[in-house]
Amino acid sequence: MQTPETFPTLDDDAILQLNADGKLRHLLTLKGLDRNCLLELLDAAQHFVSPLGSAAVRNSSLAGRTVANLFFEPSTRTRASFDLAAKRLGADVLNLDVNTSSRKKGESILDTIYTLQAMQVDIMVIRDASAGVPAFITRNIGDHISILNAGEADVSHPTQGLLDLLTIRQRLGDFTNLTVAIVGDIAHSRVARSAVQGLHTLGTGEIRLVSPPALAPAANEMPYAKIMDNLDDGLRGANVVMALRIQRERIADLDGIPDVDDYFANFGITQQRLEQAAANAIVMHPGPMNRGIEIESSLADSAASAITQQVTNGVAVRMAVLERVSKVMAPI
Amino acid sequence: MQTPETFPTLDDDAILQLNADGKLRHLLTLKGLDRNCLLELLDAAQHFVSPLGSAAVRNSSLAGRTVANLFFEPSTRTRASFDLAAKRLGADVLNLDVNTSSRKKGESILDTIYTLQAMQVDIMVIRDASAGVPAFITRNIGDHISILNAGEADVSHPTQGLLDLLTIRQRLGDFTNLTVAIVGDIAHSRVARSAVQGLHTLGTGEIRLVSPPALAPAANEMPYAKIMDNLDDGLRGANVVMALRIQRERIADLDGIPDVDDYFANFGITQQRLEQAAANAIVMHPGPMNRGIEIESSLADSAASAITQQVTNGVAVRMAVLERVSKVMAPI
Amino acid sequence: MQTPETFPTLDDDAILQLNADGKLRHLLTLKGLDRNCLLELLDAAQHFVSPLGSAAVRNSSLAGRTVANLFFEPSTRTRASFDLAAKRLGADVLNLDVNTSSRKKGESILDTIYTLQAMQVDIMVIRDASAGVPAFITRNIGDHISILNAGEADVSHPTQGLLDLLTIRQRLGDFTNLTVAIVGDIAHSRVARSAVQGLHTLGTGEIRLVSPPALAPAANEMPYAKIMDNLDDGLRGANVVMALRIQRERIADLDGIPDVDDYFANFGITQQRLEQAAANAIVMHPGPMNRGIEIESSLADSAASAITQQVTNGVAVRMAVLERVSKVMAPI
Repeated sequence: MQTPETFPTLDDDAILQLNADGKLRHLLTLKGLDRNCLLELLDAAQHFVSPLGSAAVRNSSLAGRTVANLFFEPSTRTRASFDLAAKRLGADVLNLDVNTSSRKKGESILDTIYTLQAMQVDIMVIRDASAGVPAFITRNIGDHISILNAGEADVSHPTQGLLDLLTIRQRLGDFTNLTVAIVGDIAHSRVARSAVQGLHTLGTGEIRLVSPPALAPAANEMPYAKIMDNLDDGLRGANVVMALRIQRERIADLDGIPDVDDYFANFGITQQRLEQAAANAIVMHPGPMNRGIEIESSLADSAASAITQQVTNGVAVRMAVLERVSKVMAPI
Repeated sequence: MQTPETFPTLDDDAILQLNADGKLRHLLTLKGLDRNCLLELLDAAQHFVSPLGSAAVRNSSLAGRTVANLFFEPSTRTRASFDLAAKRLGADVLNLDVNTSSRKKGESILDTIYTLQAMQVDIMVIRDASAGVPAFITRNIGDHISILNAGEADVSHPTQGLLDLLTIRQRLGDFTNLTVAIVGDIAHSRVARSAVQGLHTLGTGEIRLVSPPALAPAANEMPYAKIMDNLDDGLRGANVVMALRIQRERIADLDGIPDVDDYFANFGITQQRLEQAAANAIVMHPGPMNRGIEIESSLADSAASAITQQVTNGVAVRMAVLERVSKVMAPI
Repeated sequence: MQTPETFPTLDDDAILQLNADGKLRHLLTLKGLDRNCLLELLDAAQHFVSPLGSAAVRNSSLAGRTVANLFFEPSTRTRASFDLAAKRLGADVLNLDVNTSSRKKGESILDTIYTLQAMQVDIMVIRDASAGVPAFITRNIGDHISILNAGEADVSHPTQGLLDLLTIRQRLGDFTNLTVAIVGDIAHSRVARSAVQGLHTLGTGEIRLVSPPALAPAANEMPYAKIMDNLDDGLRGANVVMALRIQRERIADLDGIPDVDDYFANFGITQQRLEQAAANAIVMHPGPMNRGIEIESSLADSAASAITQQVTNGVAVRMAVLERVSKVMAPI
């Protein structure tokens, strides 16, 4: 089959990732994963967390399995995180550098996927700049293979969402009393979308999306979140402040924000501004950070920052997801 | 020693790859491997094949060995196939990205090879765009190291030849009654050359090389094959139809074939055209495919297609070859 | 913390790499490592050497540890050497291609390092074109992580220094009676600096630094070495001749040496010139070689050459260093 130019994003993506018994077979989106499923994943991930300075947790639950990291968009940290997660579970890992791949020669995504399937890859970790690619692949691949979404256009980044949830739970406990402010380029952020989906499912008290008007999401997209364009209002009383990475090119297009310094003045999270937030508020960032643009450098390194904790939780969450989907496969 | 500008292709390449007892020490070409040797490799490879959806076959016969994949020409599928084959036998695998290597700094091939030898690499998997490189390396490396040719200019691609043979044998059994038509750019195809060598050794009934005249091989190169330039004639009664990848640049140089559509009309394998072939004829392609140029997309995905089976067999054949050459090494 | 533009090289780098008990925790430089420490490392490395053609030595002393190769400067041989060393000790290895990394997106070195630390990497192998980076990272990373310098600007390349020492000891025994001539671009050579530091500590009889005047080090930098600009004088009676790689661009800037042929005539090490050296003198080169520029090709392949032995020792030395620093970590 020829790979289409565009990939439909259908409402059944959420269903596609569960098997007939409601068990997780793929991870495409946090949308449609119920509270129970999310909490089970967070509990499983928590078992893979050990204190910094101690040995990384390991087991051999993926021994004999092959995991392929297929990144059609460049990435260091997410690729490294999945790589280590798979290796610490004993899997063989195939890292495909898609810049030097046959995709350059015009091979379709599906032919690449069918090739990996024929090589008996068990789990494919996919990052792609086009919306709908992970679900498209899932619909066209054999039943015995799991697809994990490692970042899909501006649509979804479910393991990032899970690591954000785990970090908030570790630092602040129950979600129902929390106010979470996500700040920055919401419109283009798969990180924000996955976080909001998870936070909503776990009953977060209030979710605020704070951005320049041009970078706000459509009003009806996340109806359970509050769209705001003033940072001070957005931070007031917040327990969690999540700064998003802003692309410098996007700042140039904003009305009334001529440059990065102005963006920092208006939407940069600083120690001083954080004083309006709740006592013990935490600051998060998915990385890589633009220090001095969306976040004050000293704040990123302060006790309020949960940023490196997020990275640690990223490996743990990916181990949990890899182990979870391997459990619905035929035993080796 | 300085690396020469050109590398002689000598008639003793075939002998070079066998040790004094006639055992396989290197795999440079299928030329000169006798029927028995080929059948032993196919039998060994068959043991590494398991049904899709079941766990990949593994053993630890290469535990403690180091395999270096040294690709001077970019490749995704062959590199990934050798990588997985080596890992599933327990080897340590070193993947060398030769674009960022010291070859850029002017280091000769031999110095790279001597460096890997000094690092106690046991098996080197070599792909190079220059004819004669694998044999040149074999002549200059220590006795205890095995060289495997993973694609050599337009000369040879022996593991591809083996996987083609294995696929045909799985689908159609004995070779003596078969008519095999190889279609496309024969002149520049290492895939065709290795296939023809293997098919000839196994006594294939009839081998046809079908191409535009400008892409035909020299008349005396493969005297046991029939050179043809009409696709309908070539397909008539064939049991196996192997489509070759055509480079778009080459089409532009063909007389009377102004564009890719015209190439497809004249030399593209389609469901309709396949009706002239034998009942139960199979269609093969080494990949990556140009769908709609050398092969009709729906045909590639049909029951007649053995294309993904070829990929599965590719890993199995490489495991068999790796295991075989490791058996003539000093035990660990 | 923002990564600074420049990195201080402080006198306490040597102390930084030892723990309170004087044990090696990091390897930043050979400066300050005493005779005992160097000899212990060489002895440990010697245990990891096995004859060419026999199996590589292995153990599982790094099982459960994660080693990240973080090369901000391209490298094939040093990267491959560390990769194999870590794998042969049973470590998980993360190879980071920093060209496709988030550093392109402006992330600071420290954020990359903190990310790897948060992923529970135990040992980071760093190559960087800026002086001071390994020590800067060491000062800013957690106590439980070891930093190994794999090449730092023109300042230091300690594992290269160790492999040079090991090679000389294997071929010639005791250092006190030896005359060692290092020839070529001394000024820009981290290889020369690390070699001189190690040779001096081990009490080498005479150390000569032979180069065109423009490529000589500052007179007071290595006071225990003799700066010379005549090759014949430099080689006279030498037991060890170490040729350094010269960058072609640098030749263009030399007075009175208009081209590479002239450089070869004046500073190239040849069989004939070596006749002035001691009987049984050995020739070394850190690689990759420019054959016919800094060294005669036939000499590089002669019995006097220890060049591939250096490569073998490179893996052994890196295994020794990896094992050594892992011994001061909390047990797994």
